[in-house]
Amino acid sequence: MTLIPSTPWQDIAAAKRQARDALIPEEWRIKPTSADNVIDVPRTCGVLSPKEIEITELDAPTLVEKMVEGKLKSYDVTLAFCKRAAVAQQLTNCLTEIFFTAALENAKKIDEEYARTGTSLGPLHGLPVSLKDNFYVEGVDTTVGFVAWANDPAPKEKESEMTKIMRECGAVLFCKTNVPTAMMIAETYNNVWDYTTNPYNRKCSSGGSSGGESALLALKGSPLGVGTDIGGSIRIPASFCGLYSLKPSFGRFATYGARSGLPGQEAIRSINGPMSTSLDAIELWAKSVVGKEPWYRDPNMLPIPWREVNVPEKLCFGLILDNGMVKPTPPVTRALLQAKKALEAAGHKVVEWSPYKPEEANKIVNQFFQGDGGVKIAQYISLSGETYPEGLSAYKARHEALKSTPPLVGELWDTQTARTAYCKKVLDHWLSSREVTGTGRPFDAVISPVTPHSACPKMAFNDHVAYTSMWNITDYSATTFPVDFVDPSVDAKITHEARNEVEKKIWDRYDAQEVDGAPVSLQLVCQRLEEEKALKLTRLVAKALKSA
Amino acid sequence: MTLIPSTPWQDIAAAKRQARDALIPEEWRIKPTSADNVIDVPRTCGVLSPKEIEITELDAPTLVEKMVEGKLKSYDVTLAFCKRAAVAQQLTNCLTEIFFTAALENAKKIDEEYARTGTSLGPLHGLPVSLKDNFYVEGVDTTVGFVAWANDPAPKEKESEMTKIMRECGAVLFCKTNVPTAMMIAETYNNVWDYTTNPYNRKCSSGGSSGGESALLALKGSPLGVGTDIGGSIRIPASFCGLYSLKPSFGRFATYGARSGLPGQEAIRSINGPMSTSLDAIELWAKSVVGKEPWYRDPNMLPIPWREVNVPEKLCFGLILDNGMVKPTPPVTRALLQAKKALEAAGHKVVEWSPYKPEEANKIVNQFFQGDGGVKIAQYISLSGETYPEGLSAYKARHEALKSTPPLVGELWDTQTARTAYCKKVLDHWLSSREVTGTGRPFDAVISPVTPHSACPKMAFNDHVAYTSMWNITDYSATTFPVDFVDPSVDAKITHEARNEVEKKIWDRYDAQEVDGAPVSLQLVCQRLEEEKALKLTRLVAKALKSA
Repeated sequence: MTLIPSTPWQDIAAAKRQARDALIPEEWRIKPTSADNVIDVPRTCGVLSPKEIEITELDAPTLVEKMVEGKLKSYDVTLAFCKRAAVAQQLTNCLTEIFFTAALENAKKIDEEYARTGTSLGPLHGLPVSLKDNFYVEGVDTTVGFVAWANDPAPKEKESEMTKIMRECGAVLFCKTNVPTAMMIAETYNNVWDYTTNPYNRKCSSGGSSGGESALLALKGSPLGVGTDIGGSIRIPASFCGLYSLKPSFGRFATYGARSGLPGQEAIRSINGPMSTSLDAIELWAKSVVGKEPWYRDPNMLPIPWREVNVPEKLCFGLILDNGMVKPTPPVTRALLQAKKALEAAGHKVVEWSPYKPEEANKIVNQFFQGDGGVKIAQYISLSGETYPEGLSAYKARHEALKSTPPLVGELWDTQTARTAYCKKVLDHWLSSREVTGTGRPFDAVISPVTPHSACPKMAFNDHVAYTSMWNITDYSATTFPVDFVDPSVDAKITHEARNEVEKKIWDRYDAQEVDGAPVSLQLVCQRLEEEKALKLTRLVAKALKSA
Repeated sequence: MTLIPSTPWQDIAAAKRQARDALIPEEWRIKPTSADNVIDVPRTCGVLSPKEIEITELDAPTLVEKMVEGKLKSYDVTLAFCKRAAVAQQLTNCLTEIFFTAALENAKKIDEEYARTGTSLGPLHGLPVSLKDNFYVEGVDTTVGFVAWANDPAPKEKESEMTKIMRECGAVLFCKTNVPTAMMIAETYNNVWDYTTNPYNRKCSSGGSSGGESALLALKGSPLGVGTDIGGSIRIPASFCGLYSLKPSFGRFATYGARSGLPGQEAIRSINGPMSTSLDAIELWAKSVVGKEPWYRDPNMLPIPWREVNVPEKLCFGLILDNGMVKPTPPVTRALLQAKKALEAAGHKVVEWSPYKPEEANKIVNQFFQGDGGVKIAQYISLSGETYPEGLSAYKARHEALKSTPPLVGELWDTQTARTAYCKKVLDHWLSSREVTGTGRPFDAVISPVTPHSACPKMAFNDHVAYTSMWNITDYSATTFPVDFVDPSVDAKITHEARNEVEKKIWDRYDAQEVDGAPVSLQLVCQRLEEEKALKLTRLVAKALKSA
């Protein structure tokens, strides 16, 4: 059934964008620029005062500390980030919902209460935090890129559990960030909000699906953002924008009550995680959320408190140089070897390693994502009459092919059986690394590409998420960390014989000049529910890279 | 498609039973008896020596201790339990696969190795342990009650993870126990092995689906058994036979590689748990399994080590007297009030409480169990041409009704969404008990019926598993504990106006004389992943009952 909407979808979308743009005060508008790299514009555009520039370049823990010490007011911090977010929006189109006014009022109240009681309001006291668009926030929409979901502001009681936790931690919510339609594309664009670009090179993508966050955070328009990841949706945009991020295993950071493009799909779970230019900010968020005992508020959370971990002095890392499906492009390979060298220089061992049958994981993941035959997405698309975005063409094709024979529950059960067997193989494969580490332990972590790309050119991602999604299907914990930027003088194309159509597309398209200056980041993977260890080892790798 | 099997299913089943019976040596055969209560027969039948009777009446921790101290040999212990299990089989038809010879050889090896090294082989050193039929064990079948799965012995590499863990803990596996077809009936019978009766009253059911275990354990034919529970399948048989048992939350006790009647069904998870006449045995098993770090062998397990818990001196328990759907029969109500009185006498508070909408849980649970439209079970049934057992008639009806329109994945997603929302309500409802406990905490635990029945008469369960299955759908931890036995002089039928068809059937059928002497047990429920606390509080309740 296709509903015939009363207003053309283009008009609804245009009105949404106009309404958003109108929320940026005249004095925060910047002159249009045709530059590709706009990363310094917030500092030079004149919208922020020197003090505000200084504030917005402090990391989250420092900001909280200064607010708790009384050296900064939440109001001033929030105002500075609102301005910088407004600039970021004008540069990259990273925002969906803007609620600066409510944020400033909230910050003022926090300052007043703090002045009155002298008690910090929580571990994120007064800190502006940005949220991916799919978290419900009182008074604003949660379109997740669907035109049909526009103009339906959430009432207070509908706020997502993560939204509530952020508020209870003392955070000031001030904006939501762009996503691809249904959050099922690795670049960020949709018919409501359009395309989000990469601030390091606006010919490039900021990644997806948390690609509004990544662009905003890279420009320091927010000190800390919350994204979601079901196949790479935190890690891909974080890597494209040179950010730290954490993709935890399912069960530690409340997910209840967030909006999904595939509601009820549970065979592969979406998780919430932090993104930031600062690793300390990532850890602050993780500790803060777990400290709120999310298992008493979200029935899916696990009662695992934040755990201190000790790591041995000499570690052994696995290194994935190629998953056998799509070899990373030259800058990513360079970063992998850079990380290897740095870790070895720091006294650790690095062993090249092939993950267990990524092609099998990739197949199963797609079966889960399109498990309903694309019916849900087709329904949401058809409600407004909007066209499918290019990145959802596989969902469209599947829906058309299976219209009269949508997938049956029994088939899903079979795929779930296959998935569990696959996860067992991955576990055994990882543990068998004990034989090569020389430490008596399996790999302490695995260093891997996030995607075959640095940041990729716009509309050139080409659909290979196997480097990330295999850790979703297995539910392992993973982080991203920045390594370098594309440098055409060292990242020139090499000859590589493609092994399949996707690899061919990606390698044919690769051109160092086109991605000049784009961030190059990597992924660190630990086993299931090892978030604390993953963060600790990421810190160690970052330090090694810095010393190298 | 219905396959036409070459051998009539009745012949296959009869051959299986004959082969099993032939594994009981002539000198272990007992004279048939027409008694209903056969609980003392193992002591009086003459098969066991006085020493063997003494051994089989020790609890699991004591047996392990004595074997480690060198005061008992595993061989002698195993032989004693093989004899007693053989007697139990003849009395209640509780066994499926018998492998006494392999067990005795294994026990001998354990004794030899221990004599040589002086080192215990694990926390279950030399202890005979029985397994529910759905665990794969080398060399024997895993029919789960399906004729089609007969005569297909498992190779070593197919052994279930739990089987392997038991072996690695030093346990001696010696038999597997009966289940209803597909393990989806609350009494234990199937076309391969027939009906398992209750040793306290053989006119009654031993419960299901782990009803071979419960009959065997009640007769002390095994000191410790492992069952599985997806809707009550450990708790119902444990309660029918007056046993302690633990239904943990999913993720603590390896489930990988066990056979299911609904393979790949994950919306509600089956768990493994221990059953025994001894609460110490339950705790020994739980600590032993977690001590083997199952998260390094089963990808679904959680890295949560065994945790010591402290409980405050004064506790508050919720008490479910009636779930609003089926009021418990008189002996169960008596047990509930007995527990209340005992806890109050011990200085604790007990508050009557209604669980959150059990009818909603019940509906969702059935939607999950029959999620594939009964297709899988229909397939397995049709492979041999066997008839549906009466207890699966709902599956049969559903399969026939939906043959041409089996349920779609999109519908399952919707039910999963409804389930998560339901679980959130249950969580909030439980936490809101804080307002009535007077302790500043929510209920420390909830005491509840397991079913409306003591042990029910044969074929009279009548399908109400809502008291147990609501803690499967929410994944809470629960135990059972024995309270008393049916006494017609105090458990006479009362007038109760039935609120629905199921309740009417159960109350119409109730007759204290018919269930005379049947065990009456209760359930203790803690929140998700609170296994340690559940065991600690069960110990406290048992002690209070004993002192009362």
